[in-house]
Amino acid sequence: MRVLRLDVAYDGTEFHGWQVQPGLRTVQGEIERALAAVLGETVTVKGAGRTDAGVHARGQVASLATASRLPARALAPALNRRLPPDLRVLEAADAAPDFDARHSARARRYGYRLLDADDVLLRRTAWAPRHAPRAAALARATGPLEGEHDFASFRSAGGSEGTPRCLVFRAAWRRWESGLLLDIVADHFLYHMVRTIVGTALAAARRDDPAAAMAAVLAARDRRRGGVTAPPQGLCLEQVFYPADGPA
Amino acid sequence: MRVLRLDVAYDGTEFHGWQVQPGLRTVQGEIERALAAVLGETVTVKGAGRTDAGVHARGQVASLATASRLPARALAPALNRRLPPDLRVLEAADAAPDFDARHSARARRYGYRLLDADDVLLRRTAWAPRHAPRAAALARATGPLEGEHDFASFRSAGGSEGTPRCLVFRAAWRRWESGLLLDIVADHFLYHMVRTIVGTALAAARRDDPAAAMAAVLAARDRRRGGVTAPPQGLCLEQVFYPADGPA
Repeated sequence: MRVLRLDVAYDGTEFHGWQVQPGLRTVQGEIERALAAVLGETVTVKGAGRTDAGVHARGQVASLATASRLPARALAPALNRRLPPDLRVLEAADAAPDFDARHSARARRYGYRLLDADDVLLRRTAWAPRHAPRAAALARATGPLEGEHDFASFRSAGGSEGTPRCLVFRAAWRRWESGLLLDIVADHFLYHMVRTIVGTALAAARRDDPAAAMAAVLAARDRRRGGVTAPPQGLCLEQVFYPADGPA
Repeated sequence: MRVLRLDVAYDGTEFHGWQVQPGLRTVQGEIERALAAVLGETVTVKGAGRTDAGVHARGQVASLATASRLPARALAPALNRRLPPDLRVLEAADAAPDFDARHSARARRYGYRLLDADDVLLRRTAWAPRHAPRAAALARATGPLEGEHDFASFRSAGGSEGTPRCLVFRAAWRRWESGLLLDIVADHFLYHMVRTIVGTALAAARRDDPAAAMAAVLAARDRRRGGVTAPPQGLCLEQVFYPADGPA
């Protein structure tokens, strides 16, 4: 069987997340429906990140196996003609036979956008917390997260199980046009992890010592010590990293 | 009668423009419906700019006359509870008895957002032209527009009539996060004027002498010499200017 890689972007507002659910509009479901029409066979796609309802993607990656001999370069235009406007295939390419969008991934990058003030034009893609955050305090709060840690304090129930140890390569804030953005890269993420980090960082940023407050939550390994889960609309899967020389 | 001023923001994507039209979802219609519920009387609101379908506003201003004695500070929260999430009243305040959002305005500021590349998360609020524009060439193209001119070359049929002479205080491009933004301020605008300026500027920017190309279109006073009308989603009414000491 031939393996294909799809690079995908979507506005998650009107999707019930990535994963197929009977009777609901999901990203995976829409892609599989378009693929069935284009390839003439039923296929299952696997995504690098199973984004929740309302969460967006600019750099989701999916993989699938197919018997079709359609040239890869013809696939993206054919799929986009059948996909809704809030879901686009950016690129389709042949991949190594053992490529698996989820298991071959070495790291994911997410962005979480905060607004300085409410903005009706940005309410689908960013979140305005009640108290406008201070950039320096947020940076101090997320500093302790870089490195390898047990992130159990930031994992919601309901996701898939597995090790709570994650290797965070980067957790940094920068200004974007209308507020602050958390740019976070890790080998993998737990269920609701980025959103809970944002909620916890906002609370920690209001304390005298934001770094100590965050470090205490991290060390507790107890979800009850973490902060609220920030709402989904601020979150976007920006990029998935694979080994440069193909999946090893 | 007491006169009120409302400052309003909306995502225009799912509205059939500002102006009331029977059976269609319009901004004016939604505001008047919410006002009727809150004030207990039928009122007509007048907007400073009659934005088209798909055009947004961060700084629309509306005025209305009412017999209600409801304190102005209670009005915005009460209206927002009844308005859909894509339409917000930012502020409500008592105004001078002769205040008229449309006729008292001295100038309007619009922004038009271009994208460097297509982006599914920004497709409601910005436009990706086929050829990514060069900033310097666009700036040369719109330079000749500043000042008082006859803008008949940039007026679509179908809007209200009136003098085609407009005083453009500013027509400048700046980078925003994902592309270029035209920031344009004028005493008033003709029907589709900003969108036609954008379409014409994109064409002029590809010529050897963008300023000369634009000046020739302007001097022709003939809509057939102007360029295409850029699509509505890139346009946003950002601000309306009134005399500091109230309408004179």
